Amino acid sequence: MKIIVDTMGGDRGPIEIIKGALDAIDEYGIDVILVGDQILLESELKKTSYPKDKVEIIDAKDVITNEDDPSMAIRRKKDSSMIVGAKALVEGLGDGFISTGNTGALLATGIFVVKRIEGIDRAALSVLYPTLKGFSLLLDAGANVDCKPEYLYQFALMGSIYMENVMNIKSPTIGLLNIGVEKGKGNQLAKDTYEILEKSDLNFIGNIEGRELPSGAADIIVADGFAGNIALKLTEGMAISIFSILKDELTKNVKSKLGALLLGPGLRSIKNKMDYREYGGAPLLGTNKPIVKAHGSSDALAIKNGINQLKKFIDGDVINIIKNNIS
Amino acid sequence: MKIIVDTMGGDRGPIEIIKGALDAIDEYGIDVILVGDQILLESELKKTSYPKDKVEIIDAKDVITNEDDPSMAIRRKKDSSMIVGAKALVEGLGDGFISTGNTGALLATGIFVVKRIEGIDRAALSVLYPTLKGFSLLLDAGANVDCKPEYLYQFALMGSIYMENVMNIKSPTIGLLNIGVEKGKGNQLAKDTYEILEKSDLNFIGNIEGRELPSGAADIIVADGFAGNIALKLTEGMAISIFSILKDELTKNVKSKLGALLLGPGLRSIKNKMDYREYGGAPLLGTNKPIVKAHGSSDALAIKNGINQLKKFIDGDVINIIKNNIS
Repeated sequence: MKIIVDTMGGDRGPIEIIKGALDAIDEYGIDVILVGDQILLESELKKTSYPKDKVEIIDAKDVITNEDDPSMAIRRKKDSSMIVGAKALVEGLGDGFISTGNTGALLATGIFVVKRIEGIDRAALSVLYPTLKGFSLLLDAGANVDCKPEYLYQFALMGSIYMENVMNIKSPTIGLLNIGVEKGKGNQLAKDTYEILEKSDLNFIGNIEGRELPSGAADIIVADGFAGNIALKLTEGMAISIFSILKDELTKNVKSKLGALLLGPGLRSIKNKMDYREYGGAPLLGTNKPIVKAHGSSDALAIKNGINQLKKFIDGDVINIIKNNIS
Repeated sequence: MKIIVDTMGGDRGPIEIIKGALDAIDEYGIDVILVGDQILLESELKKTSYPKDKVEIIDAKDVITNEDDPSMAIRRKKDSSMIVGAKALVEGLGDGFISTGNTGALLATGIFVVKRIEGIDRAALSVLYPTLKGFSLLLDAGANVDCKPEYLYQFALMGSIYMENVMNIKSPTIGLLNIGVEKGKGNQLAKDTYEILEKSDLNFIGNIEGRELPSGAADIIVADGFAGNIALKLTEGMAISIFSILKDELTKNVKSKLGALLLGPGLRSIKNKMDYREYGGAPLLGTNKPIVKAHGSSDALAIKNGINQLKKFIDGDVINIIKNNIS
């Protein structure tokens, strides 16, 4: 298996990404294609004892930044590592593509370069959302801000296939993010989506309120990209805020500092539980080839885990199963 | 000042509500009208040494429960404490109305019994959302699931008037809940609302992402009721989840229990900071008279604080100021 890695566009620069990719070679027995500035990549690789037969480089001089407008960027920055990497994916030089770059641009690249699976109306960004029970797959996490009920049905179908074949959850439960548990609650989109999901063969268990999201009420949470993105980022914001208050309290005085010392390992284990880096990247579901979006601030560990996620995405044959289920 | 209190429909029954109302008489120097089953109310009051000249009772035999369909309930349950209380408000028997009952029914009661302010398209449920800095006013928190940009503009206007005149925040900042900070981000509703807010005289500071909500990025957060409700409930769910994990860690072994003991006061102060009961109720903005929705599970403290919120709502002359600004 060969993974194409976009080494540019991450918040931490290419070194962490290269490091994560090399770690993944060791740990998962894969090959990688590093896409980026060849001179920089070669000079970085020289500093390490990397397995030369498992690493290729594809040169790409340009980079799509977070400040770039996605649709503009994919038209104008043809030599960017993101577009060059995606083209290599289309040409079959590798089996999957991972990037930490501009989310909107990666979505646009997925749709316009790699292209959607025939019959899929919209590709969705799906995120492994940490819960009390483990995680839920939340989709769409922000790719499609204005949705139709049919899109949400397809998100549920693709999420279901992903959770079954990649995460090994048999007949995963599907919940619809909504403002009340009863049928008939919510905006028009939620009401119409409920009707479709209820009649489908999917394991739909009804509406899930915001309150139940962190407890892990369903294996898959389906939402439009607007509500889904707000929920995802708010979860991150809440975790940051609560730990920030906690830190203030823990360092307030000698007594609390001693308490913090005693609690240290426990608190760290909570923080790890909520750490997105442990869960790797966000698979883009609905494109013709496997693409994973890693967090912009990913370090080597997050990249390595993201590559593992992508490997399981490929191993699970998700895209062919989606194709068979949509036609 | 006389406050009309719906004593029925709360999760804890009327006794806590009566207690909260009596506490409010002492603390804020107001009179109250208790609406509910007269026999029950009188028998409960007899058990206390309440100030007889400051308490009236209006008999209402029926109750709207959380299981009732709101629109059905307000048509069929004319003798319910909620409808009877709202009618007393319309007749001018009291200055404001507070209820812990069915949120949807209270909204419907506000709109169809108390009626909207002329020129206001939709009434919004606004919630004081606890943040690192204090609180933001989040509206709409769930009254209007399908919105137009004009509604959101009116929410911003009403919220601004409320925060200025009730919470004494001069020229409060307004943020639009969205999935990105830049102009042009979000769904069609968010994009169109941005345009209107940007051109308005309000102190609009731009889009606020979910991540920034808990840090208190704006005094007022404007959202459609679908996204707003999901954000509000998710915040509650995250707090519950994190404290539940924390509790598990704190009681894991002797060492952690000792740590927890040392940290006790600090942890309690965090919990209090995030306790909705400290902030009283949620004002319904856009109706002709002041109405406050208290949380269904409100205890006496929450009711007392809710009445204080309602008192400030009345003192702030919010409704007349909205009338002057909308015409």
